[in-house]
Amino acid sequence: MEGNFVDYQHIGKSTKRIDVIPKVTGKAKFVGDIKIPGMLYGKILWSALGHAKIKRIETDPAKRLPGVKAVITWKDVPRHAYCPAGHPYPDDSPQDMYILDKTVRFLGDPVAAVAAESKEIAQKALGLIKVEYEELPLILSPEEALKENAPEIHEGTKNICGQHSYEFGNVLGGFKNADLIIEDEFRTPIVQHCPIENHASLAYLDNDARLIVHSATQIPFHLRRILSQVLGMPMGKIKVIKSYVGGGFGGKEDVCQEPINAVLALTTGNPVLLEFSREEEMVSTRTRHSMILELKSGVMKNGELVARELKVLSNTGAYAAHGHCVVYNIDAQFPVLYPTPNISFAGLSVYTNMPIASAMRSYGISQYNFAMESHMDNIAQRLGMDPLDLRLKNICKLGYRDPQAYFSVNSCGIEECLNKGKELSNWVVKRGQKSNGIKKRGLGMACLSYASSTYPYNAELSGARIKMNEDGSATLFIGSAEIGQGNDTIMAQIAAEELGIDVESIHVIAVDTDLCPIDMGAYASRQSSVCGMAVKKAGVKCRKAITGFVGSLFNRDPEDLLVKYGVIYDGLTGESLISVKDAAMKAHYTKGNSVTIDHEAYFSPGNNPLAFGAVFAEVEVDTGTGKVEVEKIWALHDSGKILNYQAAEGQVHGGVSMGFAYGTSEQLLIDKNTGRVLNGNLLDYKMPTILDVPPVDVTFVETIEPSSAYGNKALGEPPCISVAPAVRNAVLNAIGVAYNEIPLTPEKILLHLKRTVL
Amino acid sequence: MEGNFVDYQHIGKSTKRIDVIPKVTGKAKFVGDIKIPGMLYGKILWSALGHAKIKRIETDPAKRLPGVKAVITWKDVPRHAYCPAGHPYPDDSPQDMYILDKTVRFLGDPVAAVAAESKEIAQKALGLIKVEYEELPLILSPEEALKENAPEIHEGTKNICGQHSYEFGNVLGGFKNADLIIEDEFRTPIVQHCPIENHASLAYLDNDARLIVHSATQIPFHLRRILSQVLGMPMGKIKVIKSYVGGGFGGKEDVCQEPINAVLALTTGNPVLLEFSREEEMVSTRTRHSMILELKSGVMKNGELVARELKVLSNTGAYAAHGHCVVYNIDAQFPVLYPTPNISFAGLSVYTNMPIASAMRSYGISQYNFAMESHMDNIAQRLGMDPLDLRLKNICKLGYRDPQAYFSVNSCGIEECLNKGKELSNWVVKRGQKSNGIKKRGLGMACLSYASSTYPYNAELSGARIKMNEDGSATLFIGSAEIGQGNDTIMAQIAAEELGIDVESIHVIAVDTDLCPIDMGAYASRQSSVCGMAVKKAGVKCRKAITGFVGSLFNRDPEDLLVKYGVIYDGLTGESLISVKDAAMKAHYTKGNSVTIDHEAYFSPGNNPLAFGAVFAEVEVDTGTGKVEVEKIWALHDSGKILNYQAAEGQVHGGVSMGFAYGTSEQLLIDKNTGRVLNGNLLDYKMPTILDVPPVDVTFVETIEPSSAYGNKALGEPPCISVAPAVRNAVLNAIGVAYNEIPLTPEKILLHLKRTVL
Repeated sequence: MEGNFVDYQHIGKSTKRIDVIPKVTGKAKFVGDIKIPGMLYGKILWSALGHAKIKRIETDPAKRLPGVKAVITWKDVPRHAYCPAGHPYPDDSPQDMYILDKTVRFLGDPVAAVAAESKEIAQKALGLIKVEYEELPLILSPEEALKENAPEIHEGTKNICGQHSYEFGNVLGGFKNADLIIEDEFRTPIVQHCPIENHASLAYLDNDARLIVHSATQIPFHLRRILSQVLGMPMGKIKVIKSYVGGGFGGKEDVCQEPINAVLALTTGNPVLLEFSREEEMVSTRTRHSMILELKSGVMKNGELVARELKVLSNTGAYAAHGHCVVYNIDAQFPVLYPTPNISFAGLSVYTNMPIASAMRSYGISQYNFAMESHMDNIAQRLGMDPLDLRLKNICKLGYRDPQAYFSVNSCGIEECLNKGKELSNWVVKRGQKSNGIKKRGLGMACLSYASSTYPYNAELSGARIKMNEDGSATLFIGSAEIGQGNDTIMAQIAAEELGIDVESIHVIAVDTDLCPIDMGAYASRQSSVCGMAVKKAGVKCRKAITGFVGSLFNRDPEDLLVKYGVIYDGLTGESLISVKDAAMKAHYTKGNSVTIDHEAYFSPGNNPLAFGAVFAEVEVDTGTGKVEVEKIWALHDSGKILNYQAAEGQVHGGVSMGFAYGTSEQLLIDKNTGRVLNGNLLDYKMPTILDVPPVDVTFVETIEPSSAYGNKALGEPPCISVAPAVRNAVLNAIGVAYNEIPLTPEKILLHLKRTVL
Repeated sequence: MEGNFVDYQHIGKSTKRIDVIPKVTGKAKFVGDIKIPGMLYGKILWSALGHAKIKRIETDPAKRLPGVKAVITWKDVPRHAYCPAGHPYPDDSPQDMYILDKTVRFLGDPVAAVAAESKEIAQKALGLIKVEYEELPLILSPEEALKENAPEIHEGTKNICGQHSYEFGNVLGGFKNADLIIEDEFRTPIVQHCPIENHASLAYLDNDARLIVHSATQIPFHLRRILSQVLGMPMGKIKVIKSYVGGGFGGKEDVCQEPINAVLALTTGNPVLLEFSREEEMVSTRTRHSMILELKSGVMKNGELVARELKVLSNTGAYAAHGHCVVYNIDAQFPVLYPTPNISFAGLSVYTNMPIASAMRSYGISQYNFAMESHMDNIAQRLGMDPLDLRLKNICKLGYRDPQAYFSVNSCGIEECLNKGKELSNWVVKRGQKSNGIKKRGLGMACLSYASSTYPYNAELSGARIKMNEDGSATLFIGSAEIGQGNDTIMAQIAAEELGIDVESIHVIAVDTDLCPIDMGAYASRQSSVCGMAVKKAGVKCRKAITGFVGSLFNRDPEDLLVKYGVIYDGLTGESLISVKDAAMKAHYTKGNSVTIDHEAYFSPGNNPLAFGAVFAEVEVDTGTGKVEVEKIWALHDSGKILNYQAAEGQVHGGVSMGFAYGTSEQLLIDKNTGRVLNGNLLDYKMPTILDVPPVDVTFVETIEPSSAYGNKALGEPPCISVAPAVRNAVLNAIGVAYNEIPLTPEKILLHLKRTVL
């Protein structure tokens, strides 16, 4: 284990993004920028009803439209069931989707698809397709879905997509012994990822009749696996290329359009570009699960939690996607942050005829954390206790192991996060202040735990390959996905660190499924942890290949040799022996004893390290208009050793903005009679702009996680998690109202003020 | 070591070429087929004089021509000396070339280059460039070049490009004790490779400002290294992609145009396509060295060779290129085929103002073999001995080590080749027959040794990477070059053999210098040996990864598991356990214990195995017209275990055709006053067509070479070597004339017949 003060050449430096030049010059080609001769444009006809059987489709008039090259319906596509989430085995994941099906289950279900010479022709062709439906009963809430004799959206499921429950200790006994029992119900909204780039793919056959798919995807290898499955084609005949990706946030951790596009390309023999409009993106791709969370806690007068119970009812919409796993991720985190001897969990994910909910940044923990952290403030209020003290009393400590044995807490900065936040936010002084007048100020906080890598049921795997050139520069192959977060830069830093060369000397190739080692993809804050370790291991192998060669050249023990700043030197004497450049050339060109410096390594973690964090929020509530102004956010994160400060701060700013939006403004509104999305565009869907987001003060509490490459832990998702409850708790502090539902829109604030204050 | 009768799944099968579909459908894109938006066309202005200093170049009129984007001369290019042959160190290779120089040394030297919007504009622009030369004295023969006070073509060299000599035993003593001393001088012509595709490259900058060069090259990695050196750019910023190649034969084992094209692309910022015309190909690329070979042998009456001496004077033309190494390759082979206790060698490669001679199929051994095998028949004639018996008496045996310790003969089929050829050609009967009339029939033979891998001074290295997909298909990355010979198919066969899967399940990626492990390239009949071994090693690593995983899954010792025909079974019980497909999926998706099946391996041979062969030729000489009709060729090869019979037979047919042409018709004619090539086109240069080449009977004498992957040895070059001397010896048998110079054109035959018969 390396200490905190290791003298790294690249790790922990604010290395400039390696993709900065193509991105700022506009040369970076996103999928929609690619033009290929003979390219057609794809368009999808979406269901006109929320639940129906397709009785008849008339496609001939559309096919006859000049410029139309293909019109496909369920009759024209291979019929292999699949789950777009990342699991190959039906036992793990409900395989409830088809490329196109003859039943439609929500208004974003595809009915037909067209490939034509222009977007306009394709759009016109959609209008010429006549569909005759047989309407089926609509289910538009999880409660309805669970009613006895409710119609089944997927046969034989009783509308249950996934469920999981456990009890550790004796929860009933725990409640019996508690001084106080507090019960709360929380509700969270449907929100959408809203990446700056919509879903897009380009599919074609190459000269060897292999299917090439360029996609703005977070999961190139899962996508290839699923394409292979649904098309019935060997993987070796399919190549997925992840293009530059304009943000994903979990929405591109799913397969939303590529199978349809692949069929269009296979049918026409032409390249087909399929780009979603924003309206299609908002409705037919994926959303965050709306949930109802019931929390019940038994607590002693001193604040000690003795029993906790959580019931989650999650609305996964029309298909499973990640719906089952998202609930399981909550079950994994529930025991962790506040270890409690008696604890029980029951989670249920149910189908409705609503947009498909799936993976979204924090994978269920934003919902759970809003509930639990709001609940904690409610408990503190009932106990007459400082909510920060309540947390400090109950938070988990170094060495903790959860009852499900998913996690070992081998590094833990949560207490320091809380204490530093207390100090930075001037907690003691500000919490005691009373505001006069119509504008009320308040300070609140919330905290979190989150696991690197995916939820603990899943297989985890990243490979990396480093190929050093004869002049000491190197190519790094990774399957992990740069989606705007800076992944490729971090991986280049790690490779450069281990090889002792400049980051500029590393050329990163990612992601092409033909070329790159397999990787599970960009999700679960896993890439720096899992792929980072694979890159480190590949780097160490390459470094040992060089030092082994140089050791024999200079008759030194390779173990004594160090490589740094492009030079190999004897660590015992400090003597510099040879440059990496010259060593690499000699290594490749030594008669009868040449060596390649080209190594692959992989990492499949057994342990998923826990990251921690706390958010403090200061608000001013205008009791006249109901507007909650968030004045300041202090975000404190124990994400272990920070690999690149600039990139890390960027993650925190972005995450806070997303959490702020979740707490105060965003909500996908669904018509309760038809299931139609009412605000599926960026005018009516209230996403904050740069002018709306509060100033953010970022603090990293750097612990060193022994199980990771450099002590680093999860950072991609944690920043979005605790903002909503911190704001909600600040509002509670400001106006004394305990809101149990987000977003805290002015309307909602006023409604509650009228009910509770007036 | 595996025996001859190993039950292979793929090795030794006539597996269909993996590139057959794109090649027969015309979808295979050669460099000249690639079109990129904004692409310009390059053209080179060649020197108007055979030796001159450039005093002044006026390029402004050319630059002003509309559509011209760049005109470059020696003033516009980086000035880093280089040697286009495959050696990074100046000590090994004369670094005597520049991208463009202010001295021109032969009529194929580039003076300036143009990039323009069309080929026509580029051609017109060349005419607008005015060059003022200061003429320098011309040297047009090696003898002139060696004269005292001869002007130096390269300063300080005394016109010597390379030299090497040795003596083992006591040659003078050997001659003293010999019953008979025979001396001969042989002369060989300049010939050109004449690949079906001329040299071509396409150079451009990608979105990351990296230089991408598509080239019809045999040596992608050497090309990248040399581009890096001459442009002063790091290798990591350069990517060479070998396109489909329409034949190379050694002519594309050199760097003839890419540095100029790279400068055009860097200067204009546009993609530039530079294609040579056939006329440019014949003059400015490369040729086979013309040589003067003096042989002196001391022999006992019983035919035993007791002393041998060889002096080689090789004309390398205006630049070194491979000129030094080609002579060294002769020094390596000279002692081998007929081990002689007293032996001496002196080789000299000299500069002249003639086209650059460099690598060509057999790398000097065609020249040497013509001389030595003709000399052997001359000796036999003098001894009154059957020339086949003379060879059988002297040929090397299993276990032989040459005095330079380059080779160990661990497999040796030469005796069997000779005996089988004797039988097949009906030697005893036909050699005794006398022809009456004007047409005289004759039967002759010659034999050879040849080393796999390059000449023994050089570094040798191939890497290979195999990445198995989750469905058990795999990608094979190799740096060895498919140039029409079937390399990629052979490598896919090897990978499939080791993985126990179908060849169709292997996707080969070759060659992109970013992606593929380093490889020295397509030359020296090395790829099946060196890269083949690397592929085998990578395959074994991958197979062990699978059997290791499956062993733990089924609780078996991985050592007992066998993989064949897509199934993994227990070798002890014969029980089939799991398909490779299912095993691969499980290996990648096993919680906490996933593995990648992705391995790189390399091979740097210490030993260069020797291949052997014999050629028998039956001719009919028309003493009226001088025409030599070759009626039949029997080619017998000990190239070890044959990996793919169909591909191997193709190599022999192609090689025989080339050797036949060398012996009977091809010769690049140079004007003795100016150095101008007189027949630099395919009308005047007499290359045989399919209607001219004789029928070939191919026999493989399969020995098993222990140092190679499957017992295989060199096959690419040997077939072209002994055809010319076999034909020459058949002519000797037919008409009794001992020709010591090729090609045996009708004119030459008639000339000799007049001198010696009439």
